Amino acid sequence: MNIVLLSGGSGKRLWPLSNDIRSKQFIKIFKGEDGSYESMVQRVYRQIKKVDKDATVTIATSKTQVSSIHNQLGTDVGISIEPCRRDTFPAIALATAYLVDVLGISPEESVVVCPVDPYVEDEYFTALKALSDQADKGEANLVLMGIEPTYPSEKYGYIIPATKDNVSAVSNFKEKPSIEVAKDYISQGALWNGGVFAYKLKYVLEKAHELIDFKDYQDLFDKYETLTKISFDYAVVEKEDKIQVMRFAGEWKDLGTWNTLTEAMEENIVGKGQMNETCKGVHIVNEMDVPVLAMGLTDVVISASPEGILVSDKEQSSYIKPYVDGIVQRIMFAEKSWGNFKVIDVEPESVTIKVTLNAGHSMNYHLHNHRDEVWVVISGTGKTVIDSVETPVKSGDVITMKAGCKHTVVADTELKLIEVQLGSDISVDDKVKYELK
Amino acid sequence: MNIVLLSGGSGKRLWPLSNDIRSKQFIKIFKGEDGSYESMVQRVYRQIKKVDKDATVTIATSKTQVSSIHNQLGTDVGISIEPCRRDTFPAIALATAYLVDVLGISPEESVVVCPVDPYVEDEYFTALKALSDQADKGEANLVLMGIEPTYPSEKYGYIIPATKDNVSAVSNFKEKPSIEVAKDYISQGALWNGGVFAYKLKYVLEKAHELIDFKDYQDLFDKYETLTKISFDYAVVEKEDKIQVMRFAGEWKDLGTWNTLTEAMEENIVGKGQMNETCKGVHIVNEMDVPVLAMGLTDVVISASPEGILVSDKEQSSYIKPYVDGIVQRIMFAEKSWGNFKVIDVEPESVTIKVTLNAGHSMNYHLHNHRDEVWVVISGTGKTVIDSVETPVKSGDVITMKAGCKHTVVADTELKLIEVQLGSDISVDDKVKYELK
Repeated sequence: MNIVLLSGGSGKRLWPLSNDIRSKQFIKIFKGEDGSYESMVQRVYRQIKKVDKDATVTIATSKTQVSSIHNQLGTDVGISIEPCRRDTFPAIALATAYLVDVLGISPEESVVVCPVDPYVEDEYFTALKALSDQADKGEANLVLMGIEPTYPSEKYGYIIPATKDNVSAVSNFKEKPSIEVAKDYISQGALWNGGVFAYKLKYVLEKAHELIDFKDYQDLFDKYETLTKISFDYAVVEKEDKIQVMRFAGEWKDLGTWNTLTEAMEENIVGKGQMNETCKGVHIVNEMDVPVLAMGLTDVVISASPEGILVSDKEQSSYIKPYVDGIVQRIMFAEKSWGNFKVIDVEPESVTIKVTLNAGHSMNYHLHNHRDEVWVVISGTGKTVIDSVETPVKSGDVITMKAGCKHTVVADTELKLIEVQLGSDISVDDKVKYELK
Repeated sequence: MNIVLLSGGSGKRLWPLSNDIRSKQFIKIFKGEDGSYESMVQRVYRQIKKVDKDATVTIATSKTQVSSIHNQLGTDVGISIEPCRRDTFPAIALATAYLVDVLGISPEESVVVCPVDPYVEDEYFTALKALSDQADKGEANLVLMGIEPTYPSEKYGYIIPATKDNVSAVSNFKEKPSIEVAKDYISQGALWNGGVFAYKLKYVLEKAHELIDFKDYQDLFDKYETLTKISFDYAVVEKEDKIQVMRFAGEWKDLGTWNTLTEAMEENIVGKGQMNETCKGVHIVNEMDVPVLAMGLTDVVISASPEGILVSDKEQSSYIKPYVDGIVQRIMFAEKSWGNFKVIDVEPESVTIKVTLNAGHSMNYHLHNHRDEVWVVISGTGKTVIDSVETPVKSGDVITMKAGCKHTVVADTELKLIEVQLGSDISVDDKVKYELK
């Protein structure tokens, strides 16, 4: 099976765990099969490989997520990078071209497109395989997954199938309705539209060429910024007559808010935390090094990270976005392709961060025009390259770098260092990258 | 007026703001007259000086609080240091001897003893002056303050006065009662015993010599550890016949728990925080650098510090102690006579702290046997002394110190530095102090 996972943008609704550069799909919050924590994207990837170990998985996303994807899934996964956000039709067209032109998959093969963040059981991925097999038959140009509703939700669009068969023609699409209207749809046999569908690669390539003037993947990538924003639903689905829906009756959750996310958590406490016996329905998700103590609370979520601390009634947590939009502060934590960094102290003329480099990795070779830096290696071994001079380093070594000096560190083992940035004009934008020869 | 403020031990009931080395009386949480925040001890000291600018104020406390007292009150205040905890009779005897033998106050003068942490208005201190004046008259050996009860509390002992006069003989003392019994006491005209009393210095000196074999203050100090633990109430108050009570009808609050502390706060948010409009009766006290967001909560206190994060229903917060007793971790923040330090990163073989030295101050001249250290100065100017060699330092300077090397830094201006401690056996006990010649 070929599968494209659509990995969306910054999820402020799960602040403080998600932020402008860390999306919810990368938060390690679910107990995996081996007892360690895994993220949504890791869980989904593991489930796909379990159902179909030969599946070709490609993630369609923006540049900012590439580091996190490689960190969490390794380098076997394909990534179709959107140079900028242009809604779902350009994104799916680009990913389709990537599969054909970069991965060399035959345009006759089918692909399943689905969001990266459903919280589902393995049977869901078996259903995706069935969706792909149905697309292979060529009875329809598009085969949608229709999820059997468990309640009259206002959050989803609805698909009205022509028959009650497992696979049916689509009679009609409906926008997100009110609860009353949703009840009516359901009585007519309507299914939720979870944004999952399968098609033969050549079909979307043809549609793309109809709407966009481009030669191949690279050409589409190069002119991506000039494309018009248009959704796949509007550009393709609503105009297609040869369209089928396949039923799915298994468990399916969309973890968009703290309320729904905590419902999917197997444990009430992730990270350092304790609650007394008068707490009911309380979840603690703590990424800080200090303990959280909760007493006498009901239906409250507490989450702490280097970005901030949320304490919210679970129902209320769905209204978080405008409050988080109002919080302006520097990024305090980030995963990078080479490891991660965490801001540990901020002063007017200095910033201190802790850098963790994964074994075998290095940060970019770079310089800063407006700040000096000091590194103190606190664990591991590797080498530094300072203005082209290589020096082996180990725990306890100190490296001082004046502004203008090119520098990097290469980790042999996992290597951690404290970096003190010094200057009156410290900015993440003050960085000039070079190739390391 | 001479006044002794009894400054008690670690107040875990206000965790995470108070801990083993920072007691609740030093937390800056109250809006002072100039708009900046002040602690309980600063508020009380300011109020005493307002009512009687010539008051001699002595704080009876343990060694661990001396740095905080000097930081917050300066060096004019007297401190009677208890070498160890031996209950209130030895503590009051030692402070009394301190007033006579160290400060040279005549044994004929009176002193008022009161806790360091009442939350009161200025009139309370006017009442303390009246208490002292009453003791001066010599009608009784002890004059107690009796606080007019505002409700039948189980938290306080009660004093039954002989008459309804402003000053009366004491008829009887009662232990902390049940609410029903408290109602009965109050109907008999009982007053709360707030632990405030006045006496002529010579009176307690005599009592002390009756019970303890000692020459003078220094002798009592030297043998303090050998003394029996005994309360002032048991050793003196309950055995004294010549005893009076003076009424006080003004506002008086005992801020022992988050519940009562937040009642006394003028603002709902201290530090970085915001709450949405569905929050009611919520207090945020945040000493961390990251924001707290509260949504949809009622009667909840949220407090965050480098020690941890508390989220508690206000009523429940009074049951905090056993939970905090169960939290074992290093001290993450401390005020010192020379400034303060904060732990900002902990790894198995390194600890990184941020040190702030006040202008004109220096840390102890010391060495560590089992760890190397690196300092990166991030602001200010001063000098380091490393194995007797003085070197001027400024922002950006890096100092590396091997285990066994004696070191200190002296701040000319306020000076901040990042200290990285490196070694497999890092402990606060690994410190040998030297005199700086």
